[in-house]
Amino acid sequence: MVVDAALTADEFSVGPEEDRLYRMRHSAAHILAQAMAELMPEAKLAIGPPIETGFYYDFLLPRPLTPDDLPALEARMREVVAADVPFAESRVPKDEARRLFADQPFKLELIDSFDGEEVGLCRHDALLDLCRGRHVERSGEVGAFKLMNIAGAYWRGDEHRPQLTRVYGALFATPEELAAYEHHLEEARARDHRRLGRELGLFYLTDEIGPGLPIFSPKGEMVRHLMETFVRDTQTKYGFQHVWTGHLVREALYRKSGHYDNYGDVMFPAMVDGDNVFRLKPMNCPSHMTLYKEMGVRSYRELPLRFSEFATLYRYEASGAIGGLTRVRSLTQDDCHVFCTPEQIESEFTRCLELIREVLTAYGLTEYRVQLSLKGEEGKFVDDPWKWETATQALRSALNANGVAYESVAGEAAFYGPKADFMAKDALGREWQLSTIQIDFIQPARLGVEYIGEDGHAHTPVLIHRAVTGSTERFLGVLIEHYGGAFPLWLAPVQAIVIPIADRHNNYAEQVLRRLNEAGLRAEVDQRTERMNAKIRDAQLQKVPYMLVVGDREAEAEAVAVRLRSNENLGAMSLAELVARMHDEVARRA
Amino acid sequence: MVVDAALTADEFSVGPEEDRLYRMRHSAAHILAQAMAELMPEAKLAIGPPIETGFYYDFLLPRPLTPDDLPALEARMREVVAADVPFAESRVPKDEARRLFADQPFKLELIDSFDGEEVGLCRHDALLDLCRGRHVERSGEVGAFKLMNIAGAYWRGDEHRPQLTRVYGALFATPEELAAYEHHLEEARARDHRRLGRELGLFYLTDEIGPGLPIFSPKGEMVRHLMETFVRDTQTKYGFQHVWTGHLVREALYRKSGHYDNYGDVMFPAMVDGDNVFRLKPMNCPSHMTLYKEMGVRSYRELPLRFSEFATLYRYEASGAIGGLTRVRSLTQDDCHVFCTPEQIESEFTRCLELIREVLTAYGLTEYRVQLSLKGEEGKFVDDPWKWETATQALRSALNANGVAYESVAGEAAFYGPKADFMAKDALGREWQLSTIQIDFIQPARLGVEYIGEDGHAHTPVLIHRAVTGSTERFLGVLIEHYGGAFPLWLAPVQAIVIPIADRHNNYAEQVLRRLNEAGLRAEVDQRTERMNAKIRDAQLQKVPYMLVVGDREAEAEAVAVRLRSNENLGAMSLAELVARMHDEVARRA
Repeated sequence: MVVDAALTADEFSVGPEEDRLYRMRHSAAHILAQAMAELMPEAKLAIGPPIETGFYYDFLLPRPLTPDDLPALEARMREVVAADVPFAESRVPKDEARRLFADQPFKLELIDSFDGEEVGLCRHDALLDLCRGRHVERSGEVGAFKLMNIAGAYWRGDEHRPQLTRVYGALFATPEELAAYEHHLEEARARDHRRLGRELGLFYLTDEIGPGLPIFSPKGEMVRHLMETFVRDTQTKYGFQHVWTGHLVREALYRKSGHYDNYGDVMFPAMVDGDNVFRLKPMNCPSHMTLYKEMGVRSYRELPLRFSEFATLYRYEASGAIGGLTRVRSLTQDDCHVFCTPEQIESEFTRCLELIREVLTAYGLTEYRVQLSLKGEEGKFVDDPWKWETATQALRSALNANGVAYESVAGEAAFYGPKADFMAKDALGREWQLSTIQIDFIQPARLGVEYIGEDGHAHTPVLIHRAVTGSTERFLGVLIEHYGGAFPLWLAPVQAIVIPIADRHNNYAEQVLRRLNEAGLRAEVDQRTERMNAKIRDAQLQKVPYMLVVGDREAEAEAVAVRLRSNENLGAMSLAELVARMHDEVARRA
Repeated sequence: MVVDAALTADEFSVGPEEDRLYRMRHSAAHILAQAMAELMPEAKLAIGPPIETGFYYDFLLPRPLTPDDLPALEARMREVVAADVPFAESRVPKDEARRLFADQPFKLELIDSFDGEEVGLCRHDALLDLCRGRHVERSGEVGAFKLMNIAGAYWRGDEHRPQLTRVYGALFATPEELAAYEHHLEEARARDHRRLGRELGLFYLTDEIGPGLPIFSPKGEMVRHLMETFVRDTQTKYGFQHVWTGHLVREALYRKSGHYDNYGDVMFPAMVDGDNVFRLKPMNCPSHMTLYKEMGVRSYRELPLRFSEFATLYRYEASGAIGGLTRVRSLTQDDCHVFCTPEQIESEFTRCLELIREVLTAYGLTEYRVQLSLKGEEGKFVDDPWKWETATQALRSALNANGVAYESVAGEAAFYGPKADFMAKDALGREWQLSTIQIDFIQPARLGVEYIGEDGHAHTPVLIHRAVTGSTERFLGVLIEHYGGAFPLWLAPVQAIVIPIADRHNNYAEQVLRRLNEAGLRAEVDQRTERMNAKIRDAQLQKVPYMLVVGDREAEAEAVAVRLRSNENLGAMSLAELVARMHDEVARRA
């Protein structure tokens, strides 16, 4: 995670054990500034904080910087490091600082923005910089670094202020750690789901359809379908029912539910026909509550009711915020709303937790942490302190009862209540927010949802909002990167490719195909006039789990020569053996 | 089917064998007009044609007519019939007719609208009416009739003209036929899917969500899901692939495809954010063509490509035209677009035909006729005579090659090409337009869809549009009426209800439930404190196929006492026997 330094550099905090790394990165940023000031004396220096993987510095430059400039900058930095010059900190009155940085407008603005009468400085070699302190003693101690890339960034993150040039550097204590990080980056690049999505022919983003609105090929749809079927089946096993409520509602419903006031910015523009105004659904909750009401008066005996739906929701995210499958405008949530009594919150939370654990485990996402997202002072939250307090207490005690460790973050709640958000680590150790369980005391009352209690009186049920994988689109993006495109057999859109060695084996290849299809396996025959090795290579590039080569010998023996995408050669196998092996692999979701 | 007489009465045509019935119904309409003119002398007479089940007459009346008025009208009609008065036809110059009907403004308008110098008249008993002829000789010959109901209708079907009162009568040659028709009506009323849908708790239409936008309960969703899974599996078996393209696109795509010009009236209002204008998808074709293009250049060797999708489409039907599930604004089509070469049209048509036959047969819809819907002189059709001619010829020869009998109807084509529409008869003999196969030479060219032919040059593929059940919503409406709500076991949302005789049998009932669930069967336990007979009655009203009563004896024998919704008592059955029986019934879709 890159901390957005223009906004939060001042608040960047590290534990004591990270202090050394902080000092190294902070010092390297100063050295980068020196190298830039020497390369382009007209450069105006902005800000240069350490970040989680190194450092950066923002500059206003007299000409565009290109990747070709980085080697010269890096070489100059290495000279300064080799010279092992000392870093010297000092403090001066603001007026003196203003004189020292008279030709550096960003520094002048920073000086004005600081509290107190004095500001900190740091001098090393040729450079004097404004500075809050904490450096290495000498430049020879900065560790292993590399300039990585160039990006644009607005001064103070404000798009109305000048656009600056940001140079990123990676920095770790040892060359080995730097190499590991570079390897990780390369891995992440190789697994980039946008690139893999197109190479594997899974999904496409086009101008014709619109930004953030992916469309899915037969292969991509198959993966979606398998993912949703798995969650649906697991939900059914855990006692969740499925409902269907379409993709739009009258806007008036969102005025009543609070979405219009608190979530209006994220809705697609209205469809207006005189007094008839419709909105695409950004969330299912009001529709599920309407269904609950239509189904007639419920007794406490009928609760909990658990309405799940794979509805595609539409959110009008800013066009700058969308990209690939992980930031989309169309998201098919595996959404659920549990209507229950206050007494049932804990057991229903436990049920949701078990469902989430079972599903994430099946995908090999066994490592995750839980964030308790709470109401903040600012931001859009329905104003009802007592209900917030009650919901937050209920969620905390459900987490505690289940022995779930969590950290609290203020300001990250939904507008209607607190959330337990599950941050799962993928195969590369990157964190993704996927599952969520939310407690809502607010919406059901606003929409007049009721049940008749044991006392014969009407009560408002609690609403638990819950998503397992989050959304099909986003989760697929995560899975593509998690698996590097090599889906496990049960998820692979094409599970096997039959490769006839010569044209005369096409008939037998078709027989094999039929046999696999009849066994419910997804296979294709590659009848192109390519050579066998080319076909195997193409199948491996497409990350097809099984390649089944068939020639004279195989046709005679009713067998196939089996090769895996890992290039492992399993040799000849009868069709029955193959089908049994594949069925077993699918059943184990191996 | 009620012919909309205000618009088409003049074109109403019958075969010679139906001439007698036509004369009877036509004459009865005159007798109804006489009775009305006597009841309310100020009544203005409009038009009174025969229709498929009888006749009607439209009047402008001095006061609202109520069902209480019908007995008096009918009694007076019977008197005229009993009097056995003759019908006398004549022709007079238009000027004389204008004098005769000076106080009948609708007749005057009709006189002006007719070609020629003369108009026809008909006199019987006290009434002189404008008339095109063909009556019975005497009023005693009109057959068995009954006044049925009252409706509103605009003069000439134009909502800007006066609203008239329409009185409907049923009329058949014999009392037996009339009784059979009334029985049929009663049956249809008992099977009305709107009433059954609510009674069985399947779906709801609400003001909150919006007109024509049904939402589905867990039971309704289960039936939808089973229907779509069945079609999906069958499509897969027939070599169709599935894609996913969401629910909206940029409006510009519909300007290019021709939908904006030719189908704009039926689209939901635009979502407008400055230059960014989106539309809900009324059809999938442009999205599927966009996907085809994104997937890269196709060779003729890769054709045909068959893109199926269960996408919910949105059509902004006039609010007067919507009701229940059969006229909705949200329709989840089982849509498919086959991209193929001209040479492949026939085999692809055959494939579609076989798929349609297999699916309709599984639902017991074995009787259907095919209508070849052609371009008309008027209406919105893309103007490209050569392509229309080519597509129509291709569709005709595909129908002929498959030995499919059909009748041609002009003006019913899609805007982009001719259609073969399948009109299936349900259990009551009513016709529903369900499946369709359409040939389109127009859209692929407009969107620049291409493939590289054997000659190495780019060609435009033919697009075959195809739907099997039409849409999930509409087909479910038809199925509810077809089955009278008693879904066959494979489709029943709840397949069995376990009924414990006393509270002490609840535990065993839960065991039975688990066993059924593990066997993939959908069951519930009725643990209410009602008496057993009340529970059985409720289960029968809910049309649950199997009622499984469990008491001491059953618990001891690990058995259940099986009763069917037909009230047939199958006696005690072991759980293994029951599961085997139900599995077999599901597999046979019995």
